[in-house]
Amino acid sequence: MSRYQLRRDRLRRLIKKSDVDGFLVTNFTNVTYLSGFTGEDSFLLILPAGEIVLSDPRYTTQLQEECPGVDLEIRPPGTAMLASIRKVLRRAKCKAVGFESDSLTVGLYGSLVEGIDAVQWVRCQEMVERLRRIKDRDEIRSIRTAVMLAERSFQVIRCGLRAEEHERTVAHALEREIRRFGGRGCSFPPIVAIGPRSALPHARPQDIPLCGHGLLLIDWGADSADGYKSDLTRVLLTGKISPKLERIYKVVLKAQEQAIAAIRPGALMSDVDAIARNIIKDAGFGKNFGHGLGHGIGLEIHEVTRLASNQHREFKAGMVVTVEPGIYIPGWGGVRIEDDILVTRNGHDVLSSVPKDFESTFVGCN
Amino acid sequence: MSRYQLRRDRLRRLIKKSDVDGFLVTNFTNVTYLSGFTGEDSFLLILPAGEIVLSDPRYTTQLQEECPGVDLEIRPPGTAMLASIRKVLRRAKCKAVGFESDSLTVGLYGSLVEGIDAVQWVRCQEMVERLRRIKDRDEIRSIRTAVMLAERSFQVIRCGLRAEEHERTVAHALEREIRRFGGRGCSFPPIVAIGPRSALPHARPQDIPLCGHGLLLIDWGADSADGYKSDLTRVLLTGKISPKLERIYKVVLKAQEQAIAAIRPGALMSDVDAIARNIIKDAGFGKNFGHGLGHGIGLEIHEVTRLASNQHREFKAGMVVTVEPGIYIPGWGGVRIEDDILVTRNGHDVLSSVPKDFESTFVGCN
Repeated sequence: MSRYQLRRDRLRRLIKKSDVDGFLVTNFTNVTYLSGFTGEDSFLLILPAGEIVLSDPRYTTQLQEECPGVDLEIRPPGTAMLASIRKVLRRAKCKAVGFESDSLTVGLYGSLVEGIDAVQWVRCQEMVERLRRIKDRDEIRSIRTAVMLAERSFQVIRCGLRAEEHERTVAHALEREIRRFGGRGCSFPPIVAIGPRSALPHARPQDIPLCGHGLLLIDWGADSADGYKSDLTRVLLTGKISPKLERIYKVVLKAQEQAIAAIRPGALMSDVDAIARNIIKDAGFGKNFGHGLGHGIGLEIHEVTRLASNQHREFKAGMVVTVEPGIYIPGWGGVRIEDDILVTRNGHDVLSSVPKDFESTFVGCN
Repeated sequence: MSRYQLRRDRLRRLIKKSDVDGFLVTNFTNVTYLSGFTGEDSFLLILPAGEIVLSDPRYTTQLQEECPGVDLEIRPPGTAMLASIRKVLRRAKCKAVGFESDSLTVGLYGSLVEGIDAVQWVRCQEMVERLRRIKDRDEIRSIRTAVMLAERSFQVIRCGLRAEEHERTVAHALEREIRRFGGRGCSFPPIVAIGPRSALPHARPQDIPLCGHGLLLIDWGADSADGYKSDLTRVLLTGKISPKLERIYKVVLKAQEQAIAAIRPGALMSDVDAIARNIIKDAGFGKNFGHGLGHGIGLEIHEVTRLASNQHREFKAGMVVTVEPGIYIPGWGGVRIEDDILVTRNGHDVLSSVPKDFESTFVGCN
């Protein structure tokens, strides 16, 4: 049985409880997760005994290759998706159909309710996302590959840094190397921020040369050949360092390491967030850590799992999350350290291994 | 007055007719269009006299830089967006608030209705998209830049093609060149498809060498430094060509040129689609053109304007669309030719200029 069949069967068991005889998957990433289809603009209808991908002729051949055995409903050009949905629901004699309320728009929902008689629409929340929170063996292998691709590209960049290089060219070089090693590219546009610009957690790389700034923050990740993401952050120090920077770096590192140490099945996400947040607060930088501690990764770079003060959920074996505390001082600079962590049955496994002790951050840049 | 103020004022005039005293923009691209903010995870509330961006601390500095003069509501970490929306709506004493029904999910809509008392929510469709259909002078300049970036990168690639190169490395090289010329990168993952793979309209580039195949289809575009997209397709012929391929190429070219010739303000999109479709049908390939004729481009690669048989809208001056008929024969190959067209007051302007007559498709590949 393929991994996709297994996942669809797990979903069938979940939706059985919702008393529906059909489930419409409209989130394209969820369609990929459940069918292996990597294209877009396509929905997936899960039935008690079977499934249908609703797509258009641009994707017919690709669907036949990527999802052997799955039924296809290909609508001719100029036909609306709504007509396709109506057709397959009638044919399958569905009476109650679950839908993804975090993906379906109010507009399309309105058209479904108006345009398709005799079907009761049932709001479902995070059904597929719930499955996706826990990675299976194939997924963990793919995320490990994505971490490896990110690390190898970073090592190449780190060895070759030149003072006259720009933030932007460093970002582009990271993607070039990830592709050379076999990945699709970056998992998101890398953040490469020098000096005071490192205080912007989501800085966009500019045409500014690296020279003359002591601090270089790089937040990057790789997209594996099969679409799984990694997400890492390191700070590199390229000049004479102020005692303040050293102090801040060590506070962030301590916060990150102690938070990671607490990750195990059963621990609460809010508690792990609090461990990092309290260390940063006690050091006097509470107001300078303005984002959550981390997030799930997988087919998407930000998945529904969130490490934050309002997330009182338990970690479970098979989750993969980032842990990325930071301290940001506007006009001065910022430090963030980020690794990817797999929750194991007995604790956790840090998937990433780029050195992060203070001494290893120093790098030649000539 | 900034271009963003002008656009917001145009939107205010539009929403006045909907009898609302607030309009919540949840589509991130629309937020960018109306405010200049390039980050994510942020909403924009338009009020009769003013506007507020709802965001989080990761973006505070970036918002101050990118949207001077716009009010900010920054929620602390661990606070939900819903709480922020409630706060600003209360403060502004809004009674009826319009929302984007093509962007807001059923889930978030449910939370808004339940969580915010005394506000009437008014479904609005394609309000900002209606403005975005017609490009202003700044946008047309940016799209011209995006076309120029795509064309220069293609010229470099075309000159340097080698027989042992792979689909994938050609795709990566296109992005590398676009960035070298100053763009953000590709406007979408380029389609580089050789031989029979060109029959897949959305083929994903593989590790297959170019040599030994007569036909190479490249569908690519550039993302300009300020986020505007171009979208082009050319076929290159690298070997001995069959009479069938020559015939199909010339049918597609004729369909494309005659469709483009008909574009002017007042012409119907469905009629222009029909011109290309009938030429292809009359040549016996009606079933082999399984997608619409084209789509709007701008901040997004696929905007709401669609050239298709069910789109009985008129072209208007300031629209920018692709025209991209194709003929696809599974197992044999496909031909698509695509250019970007600006609708002008008296007719149209073809923004792209890569040669496309049959003779110019021949390329050395050694």
